[in-house]
Amino acid sequence: MVRVGIIGVAGYVGIELLRILQQHPNVKITQITTESYPGQDIAQVFPHLAGKVNQTGTQLDLNAIIQNCDVVFISLPHGHSATIAASLMEARKRVIDLGADFRLKKSADFQKWYNQQSAPETLLSKAVYGLPETTNKDAITKAQLIANPGCMPTACILSSAPLIKAKIIQQQDCIFDVKIGMSSTGRKPGLYSHFCEIAENIIGYNLSSSHRHTPEIEQELGVIANTPITVQLIPHQVPIIRGILATAYLKLNKEFTAEDLQNLYKKTYQNEPFIRISNSHSVANPKNVKGTNFCDISIHVNKRTQHAIVISSIDNLIKGGAGQAIQNMNLMYGFPETTGLDQFISIYP
Amino acid sequence: MVRVGIIGVAGYVGIELLRILQQHPNVKITQITTESYPGQDIAQVFPHLAGKVNQTGTQLDLNAIIQNCDVVFISLPHGHSATIAASLMEARKRVIDLGADFRLKKSADFQKWYNQQSAPETLLSKAVYGLPETTNKDAITKAQLIANPGCMPTACILSSAPLIKAKIIQQQDCIFDVKIGMSSTGRKPGLYSHFCEIAENIIGYNLSSSHRHTPEIEQELGVIANTPITVQLIPHQVPIIRGILATAYLKLNKEFTAEDLQNLYKKTYQNEPFIRISNSHSVANPKNVKGTNFCDISIHVNKRTQHAIVISSIDNLIKGGAGQAIQNMNLMYGFPETTGLDQFISIYP
Amino acid sequence: MVRVGIIGVAGYVGIELLRILQQHPNVKITQITTESYPGQDIAQVFPHLAGKVNQTGTQLDLNAIIQNCDVVFISLPHGHSATIAASLMEARKRVIDLGADFRLKKSADFQKWYNQQSAPETLLSKAVYGLPETTNKDAITKAQLIANPGCMPTACILSSAPLIKAKIIQQQDCIFDVKIGMSSTGRKPGLYSHFCEIAENIIGYNLSSSHRHTPEIEQELGVIANTPITVQLIPHQVPIIRGILATAYLKLNKEFTAEDLQNLYKKTYQNEPFIRISNSHSVANPKNVKGTNFCDISIHVNKRTQHAIVISSIDNLIKGGAGQAIQNMNLMYGFPETTGLDQFISIYP
Amino acid sequence: MVRVGIIGVAGYVGIELLRILQQHPNVKITQITTESYPGQDIAQVFPHLAGKVNQTGTQLDLNAIIQNCDVVFISLPHGHSATIAASLMEARKRVIDLGADFRLKKSADFQKWYNQQSAPETLLSKAVYGLPETTNKDAITKAQLIANPGCMPTACILSSAPLIKAKIIQQQDCIFDVKIGMSSTGRKPGLYSHFCEIAENIIGYNLSSSHRHTPEIEQELGVIANTPITVQLIPHQVPIIRGILATAYLKLNKEFTAEDLQNLYKKTYQNEPFIRISNSHSVANPKNVKGTNFCDISIHVNKRTQHAIVISSIDNLIKGGAGQAIQNMNLMYGFPETTGLDQFISIYP
Repeated sequence: MVRVGIIGVAGYVGIELLRILQQHPNVKITQITTESYPGQDIAQVFPHLAGKVNQTGTQLDLNAIIQNCDVVFISLPHGHSATIAASLMEARKRVIDLGADFRLKKSADFQKWYNQQSAPETLLSKAVYGLPETTNKDAITKAQLIANPGCMPTACILSSAPLIKAKIIQQQDCIFDVKIGMSSTGRKPGLYSHFCEIAENIIGYNLSSSHRHTPEIEQELGVIANTPITVQLIPHQVPIIRGILATAYLKLNKEFTAEDLQNLYKKTYQNEPFIRISNSHSVANPKNVKGTNFCDISIHVNKRTQHAIVISSIDNLIKGGAGQAIQNMNLMYGFPETTGLDQFISIYP
Repeated sequence: MVRVGIIGVAGYVGIELLRILQQHPNVKITQITTESYPGQDIAQVFPHLAGKVNQTGTQLDLNAIIQNCDVVFISLPHGHSATIAASLMEARKRVIDLGADFRLKKSADFQKWYNQQSAPETLLSKAVYGLPETTNKDAITKAQLIANPGCMPTACILSSAPLIKAKIIQQQDCIFDVKIGMSSTGRKPGLYSHFCEIAENIIGYNLSSSHRHTPEIEQELGVIANTPITVQLIPHQVPIIRGILATAYLKLNKEFTAEDLQNLYKKTYQNEPFIRISNSHSVANPKNVKGTNFCDISIHVNKRTQHAIVISSIDNLIKGGAGQAIQNMNLMYGFPETTGLDQFISIYP
Repeated sequence: MVRVGIIGVAGYVGIELLRILQQHPNVKITQITTESYPGQDIAQVFPHLAGKVNQTGTQLDLNAIIQNCDVVFISLPHGHSATIAASLMEARKRVIDLGADFRLKKSADFQKWYNQQSAPETLLSKAVYGLPETTNKDAITKAQLIANPGCMPTACILSSAPLIKAKIIQQQDCIFDVKIGMSSTGRKPGLYSHFCEIAENIIGYNLSSSHRHTPEIEQELGVIANTPITVQLIPHQVPIIRGILATAYLKLNKEFTAEDLQNLYKKTYQNEPFIRISNSHSVANPKNVKGTNFCDISIHVNKRTQHAIVISSIDNLIKGGAGQAIQNMNLMYGFPETTGLDQFISIYP
Repeated sequence: MVRVGIIGVAGYVGIELLRILQQHPNVKITQITTESYPGQDIAQVFPHLAGKVNQTGTQLDLNAIIQNCDVVFISLPHGHSATIAASLMEARKRVIDLGADFRLKKSADFQKWYNQQSAPETLLSKAVYGLPETTNKDAITKAQLIANPGCMPTACILSSAPLIKAKIIQQQDCIFDVKIGMSSTGRKPGLYSHFCEIAENIIGYNLSSSHRHTPEIEQELGVIANTPITVQLIPHQVPIIRGILATAYLKLNKEFTAEDLQNLYKKTYQNEPFIRISNSHSVANPKNVKGTNFCDISIHVNKRTQHAIVISSIDNLIKGGAGQAIQNMNLMYGFPETTGLDQFISIYP
């Protein structure tokens, strides 16, 4: 049994890590840390876990973690992982970071987009961007340090990669209009997440300054395109709990039918257990993927404008967070990629 | 492997039966019927099942069901099950009916509350009310025909039975104020279930004429009390998809502390895997049970009014429908009661 | 023109006072105070007022208020109004307090329920409970100090007063099951008001200890009954922005038809412009009163249990807050009671 | 007093026409027709109008309408207005059609996009597209027949017209990503509008075939650009009752600051009482315009991509329907444009 630690268990992503990992057949959770509820029975704080999870949260104690864990999931606000990860790696632990600290390869990019110093270059160079359905899967299996992707990059990269790779769209004109559920704002309450402010409302944000998920998308699509890519990403908070729906506007270089493109996507992702290409009469949506590690994608072509319109949808806390992190762990340990994840089906309606 | 049929798979309860049963380790789904989508790949109609369920819906064909099934779940509007069940039982099949046709023991009661003829007395006498956490569990294990309880009766009976049985409340003054999610109205759309009508709204109903779930509650509590019971049930539709929260107002005969009553409930339900008694600082709510077969109960005492206030919460489609039906099937076949059901934890938030 | 001040304009009730008062034909808003946004153009903080309201928020300055206002609305958390009101009254200003400081007549009651010292008895004795549809209307017209009722008491008192007064129910058995929108929790965010926590959820609260609105209800119903009354009030937060639906369970002393009771209510409230008695086929609900000063009431009788079930519904921020306060002001100044309020119709759907 | 008729009063737009018009100081509603509730007191069918509206719905009777009305609002599904409007115009009545029958100038366009025969060319040529904030205002004042714009075209045209007119964007690359509330689907229920299907969900639609609102936008922007325009419009249903948020992606021809563009918009719309240009720190959203005739617009510039991102927001039933129709009526009769409309302020929150 792999011994697992979760640092920052009491956030929305952290608590999903706990829920999913405690049912994973190959792991044993040995340490869970929380600054908010140290010393408390986690199932008392989160009663949905009552009778299912029997763990006590502790304050962060790196020695204890090093002693008791083989792999550590870090679910902290950005800027907090670098030091922790360094210590853990020195102690030969595997690390999966769910924050932004290791996602950008270039130190300068992190500094520019996050307005603070990046993790050391030596660590950055070891980090593998943990999106298994791109070309990274091999690297993931050998990685000691995983930078788990952001939720919006997961949806946007997966929805556009096949067309970028096939070089059949105008690569510099990719627009991603993202609608995202409120759990993405985290569990700490603010005016923006007050029920009364967002119910019956939609809020676009990061409209002038680009959203920090933008450089991730550009970096990974740039690798696929083998050339630098600039994209336009606009997120909108919508009154749903979970889910991302990303609408990609991709200008085709020449005429294709929707069927052509659907076949391309099906072929590209034919071995990917968590990607479902919708049939032509169905449009990907958050309800169908809620609570699962799926990324549903539907591909449409508008002949008048020669746009490929690609809709992708994920659960931001699972394929966009905890689920993808566990998928990465499976790959790192040579477990079947879907272990502990493939029993989940959305509980429609 | 038990061969299972589902009659009426395309409703909200039916599709949950399919989702849960297809992961059940001891069963094989051999027949699913639907009047709405006969001949269609069910995963095309319900894309959340894509990649997970591989079944085609058929029109109801009793011969095919008799030939291919050992146990049949019937999920049809009330009044449609009696004839079907009669044929299946004659063919020595086991039947679990999720409608109302067999819930009321007395033919006259059905006629009075549903304004139509009941199932034949011979069938009614064979039906066992499938609420395993009351005194019925033994009978369920031996039953050929199960009347699966209504969703509101499940929540209301479980929340009041221990006090009724202990004879410490004024039995004729039980009030159940129920808040219930919109999936309880079924998948067929109506003005009442239009998003614009129920969002930002709450609708009390069956205010003068009592709701048809009332006699079920009275019948079962009457058995427990060993005397006829009359209760007041008022349901309210609230803008949530799933979930029931029932607030029971029960007048205590003498002074008790909340702790006294919590201990009583814990003892009463100590062997029941699907009942969770909340700790005193926590109040049962639908989010914690969503997607699970749990019934969460929290017990409170108001000293000023000498009321026990008992909050119970279930997922109306699972413990109030498909999950409870499968729990009953497990008991009928001697499988562990939780088989195929205990992996579900609510996906908070 | 009456010169009006609003203390605490930036809460959900305060901003409604501002919106409604700035269209009131007989008043001029001269001072608005806010601790959160002093010195800011209020329409920049609340852009829904852009082009409509042209006011700058200030920090509380009693001298300025005394100099510039004839009547002052105080919309602050409880415990903050007593001192302010004392100064204003000394300066012969009229005061309408939307908090709890003056609602309970007896100093000891306030101390008991709010765990802090009450306003001085001399002030309490001058305060009139501002629920115009009870026997208080005359006193309101002569008052210098109004204690504006709580939102839940408004709904509960209006729904039960006619039956209490007619002495046809068992007075000590009144149960009020209240469902209440999230704006009642105030604009300051907390975990309980996080969209992800309350969407798809219902939360009962104040289950053991009674809610602080209870003594208000008991006090006012006691006056009507001419005897002390004890009631059971249980509030539930529901995922709607605005609105209260109160379900009153009232045990009838003898048999009445719904029509009997509806006629009683129609007669009792025949001169009340803001009370609408529903027709028998219609059930009062929050959508129909949203954005208005109406209290809709529907009366139902359950013959089996001899209960009168009375549903009342108000907008918690208007009839349960700002609107009722303005109605009180109208009465204090001899304006028609509906001035500035009767143009509002719910914007169905 | 202008005598007004409403044909099709019982839809979501029709009932808003009734609500707003009955408070309009210069009109008297003389006829309201409804196929669904003929002969019924409309306030019994729609209890939010109780005590405020005193009208009985009738079946459509053109003679009665001609005899009793000066101006008629038609709120029917497309294809039903042409014949009615012809009769009314022959009788020298003014007509404001809220459907699609007269929006497209070219008969062939209607045939192509709606798959049925258009209204006669003679009528089409008389119809004025009723979007007052473009160049049409003069024509509206003289019109006998108004084609009231679609809700999405209203938001999209107003958000892009200033940039199209100034010729500073790449005119053939306009993308409008629209998020739209469920009241836009009409009051007749369907599976798509079932609460359980759209709550916690987002549904993109008309992804391959373009939405029928597309040619309206192209027609009107084409007039402004003085050249044919092709746009990409993708609507998404979101779980809100009312409101449109349109995100326009407009590629700038050269560098501009957000302030440059904001000034351009402020100047363009300086005399338009219903357009509010947001300050730079604020983003237009549906909550701020709910229940009003405002169109809020915020303009943002992304330097990296040289995109102008323009967010526009309206209430789809008011500025996108009933309100705009009344604004047009005001212009036709020489009333101040805002009569009967400018008292509405969004009831935040």
